[in-house]
Amino acid sequence: MEPSKPAYNLEISTQRLEAFSDGVFAIAITLLVLEIKVPDHAALAGSSLGDYLWHYWPKYFAYILSFISIGIYWANHHYLFKLFKRTDHIFNMLNVLFLMTIAFLPFPTAVLGEYILEPAHKQTAITFYCLGIAMPAVCWLAFWLYGSFKGRLTDHHLKDTFISQLTRRFILSNVLYISAVIISLIDSTTAITLNVVITLLYLLPPAKPQYA
Amino acid sequence: MEPSKPAYNLEISTQRLEAFSDGVFAIAITLLVLEIKVPDHAALAGSSLGDYLWHYWPKYFAYILSFISIGIYWANHHYLFKLFKRTDHIFNMLNVLFLMTIAFLPFPTAVLGEYILEPAHKQTAITFYCLGIAMPAVCWLAFWLYGSFKGRLTDHHLKDTFISQLTRRFILSNVLYISAVIISLIDSTTAITLNVVITLLYLLPPAKPQYA
Amino acid sequence: MEPSKPAYNLEISTQRLEAFSDGVFAIAITLLVLEIKVPDHAALAGSSLGDYLWHYWPKYFAYILSFISIGIYWANHHYLFKLFKRTDHIFNMLNVLFLMTIAFLPFPTAVLGEYILEPAHKQTAITFYCLGIAMPAVCWLAFWLYGSFKGRLTDHHLKDTFISQLTRRFILSNVLYISAVIISLIDSTTAITLNVVITLLYLLPPAKPQYA
Amino acid sequence: MEPSKPAYNLEISTQRLEAFSDGVFAIAITLLVLEIKVPDHAALAGSSLGDYLWHYWPKYFAYILSFISIGIYWANHHYLFKLFKRTDHIFNMLNVLFLMTIAFLPFPTAVLGEYILEPAHKQTAITFYCLGIAMPAVCWLAFWLYGSFKGRLTDHHLKDTFISQLTRRFILSNVLYISAVIISLIDSTTAITLNVVITLLYLLPPAKPQYA
Repeated sequence: MEPSKPAYNLEISTQRLEAFSDGVFAIAITLLVLEIKVPDHAALAGSSLGDYLWHYWPKYFAYILSFISIGIYWANHHYLFKLFKRTDHIFNMLNVLFLMTIAFLPFPTAVLGEYILEPAHKQTAITFYCLGIAMPAVCWLAFWLYGSFKGRLTDHHLKDTFISQLTRRFILSNVLYISAVIISLIDSTTAITLNVVITLLYLLPPAKPQYA
Repeated sequence: MEPSKPAYNLEISTQRLEAFSDGVFAIAITLLVLEIKVPDHAALAGSSLGDYLWHYWPKYFAYILSFISIGIYWANHHYLFKLFKRTDHIFNMLNVLFLMTIAFLPFPTAVLGEYILEPAHKQTAITFYCLGIAMPAVCWLAFWLYGSFKGRLTDHHLKDTFISQLTRRFILSNVLYISAVIISLIDSTTAITLNVVITLLYLLPPAKPQYA
Repeated sequence: MEPSKPAYNLEISTQRLEAFSDGVFAIAITLLVLEIKVPDHAALAGSSLGDYLWHYWPKYFAYILSFISIGIYWANHHYLFKLFKRTDHIFNMLNVLFLMTIAFLPFPTAVLGEYILEPAHKQTAITFYCLGIAMPAVCWLAFWLYGSFKGRLTDHHLKDTFISQLTRRFILSNVLYISAVIISLIDSTTAITLNVVITLLYLLPPAKPQYA
Repeated sequence: MEPSKPAYNLEISTQRLEAFSDGVFAIAITLLVLEIKVPDHAALAGSSLGDYLWHYWPKYFAYILSFISIGIYWANHHYLFKLFKRTDHIFNMLNVLFLMTIAFLPFPTAVLGEYILEPAHKQTAITFYCLGIAMPAVCWLAFWLYGSFKGRLTDHHLKDTFISQLTRRFILSNVLYISAVIISLIDSTTAITLNVVITLLYLLPPAKPQYA
């Protein structure tokens, strides 16, 4: 923690940034469960607890989808930060912005779990969720572009072609997530299905870093 | 954090994986208390606060059982990851899946604490809890089998017999937890007692790693 | 993270234990604020928001007292673990038990904040809080006695007289906290005052470790 | 974690202090979202979910303002602790006090989000929020003055002029935040605008440390 050469002090390592981000990831992912409330005795009158827990499946679905999405973001953050060699104030702030969108996810997740089965509110709930899940992708692209621009913060041993490949991939990801938002205005079932598919695609391993 | 040899980059250490997991363990374990609500003034009308706090014992019981269970999972995760030397994307994802079942536990814990004393809902609450507590064991076995298969991620100095011994132990654990789920359908009191016994057994120290 | 000598593997460092504990401390301390609820519009009818926020002082008092108490436990945990050189399974489990009592504190804190001003419930609320705040002290003593017994886990360079001095101090602390519980049955105002005084005493720096 | 020279034991590094603080920052910042509740079915009767989510903008505004404020405090804590070379018990306690004000922020944030649009309660809500956001600044100044006084805990290579510059800056920050509290008593809209402006100013990078 104590750099021997003061001159290097501003080229700080990304260690504490990663620790803080891991904290936010870990908390946001764990708070998701708080949106699944225990049915109270009044609500249960006239039906069995089993039926109640069974009909909670939209909440379980929303929990699983958001949990895996945040988990993938965590794994990719993990992966991406191995490519960065240092951080600076603007990068810290862009990362805070990204984390703001991650920490917000329990809210659209809860909205989705509560209203996906109600015909009158289904489309709004899905559009809101698609928006919520698209925002981290936009911020992700922003801090990647900032950090990788002319090798500002990235490892100088990385091949330029590899960096361009990641940039294209992150742009594609944005296109997909924003498409899901637009599609949700027309056909919300297709939009939420697209979100599930994107999530499953992201379960594939990321590209192996290429060094010159 | 900065490997001097880029070639080793994908054989990343398990450090950040452990930190993230510890975060989820720590949060899930601490959120358990949020399910014990302060009685409001209306609910208290006609009875004393002391009686109220006293009759909360099923909630304290559920809190203690789940806290110790998650605490044991944490300690065993701690223990297991000393046997792994590296991680990969699939292992990260299996660990996320495992953490998803850990982070879910506050919900079945709350259901158990709320309904264990109500004859009409007792069995459902216990079955749901047994299911909730069995799921991490299933995921645990999955990531152990993946990580230890042909020494994929484990320390190569470990004896094969030791690894087989752990595999048998984790399979046995799954058999016990799944038995508790099945038994709960017949006799829920026996099932929850079995869960308490399994938890107490896990308080024993794990086997000492054996190196060749 | 990778000990070069497998033989030392069970004499693991306390690093991950401390990280996990810090997580639970940090979460329990931060969850305290969740017990202070925003007044809803119905509750506010006929009175001003200012009055409402002003009359919340018992909640602020409970928040501050518990926050400082948990903060002191964290600082002392920090201090104590510099005296330990390794950990084992039983010690891990005793630490989990200790953390269980720390993570429980938001509940008695909320009970205290809600009922300290109500004559009918004041004594129960204070006794419950005194019990809640005494439990971590009991567990603390337990894991200290286990870890320091015949230098089981402590640094062998520490003077025996220093270890005895800490043992006496932790026993005294238990006597004080348990006295507060007993006094609360007779005079609850004195008991809560005693708790405040103990907390203020703990703000003093701990004894400097003495090495042979 | 194991200092080779026992004599240095009290001049402990700030590593665990930072880890604990990061935990509290990460949790407080992530708990903010819990104050945005999913509208229940009864509340939604007669209006659309879209309208409801749209009219939540004061809650989103409060979420974003507090998230960025806590994020900046985190980044600056990160920055400041590179200037400290060690910690002591009083510094730990002052840091706990600071964290107590950070962890409290979800409450005034929720009050602001709930009441900023209601003419009868707007001023109180804003004054309360301005107070809430000013308190960490006061504590920050306190632990800076304690830690930097005669180079008590700071890196001895730092220029005195640089330390004085930071002191002036932190005093100015206190003047601004306390002015916002006073102004809120007269014109609450100006006060909350001032808070936004201060937050935007803090997005600028901090001064580069100067070494002798």
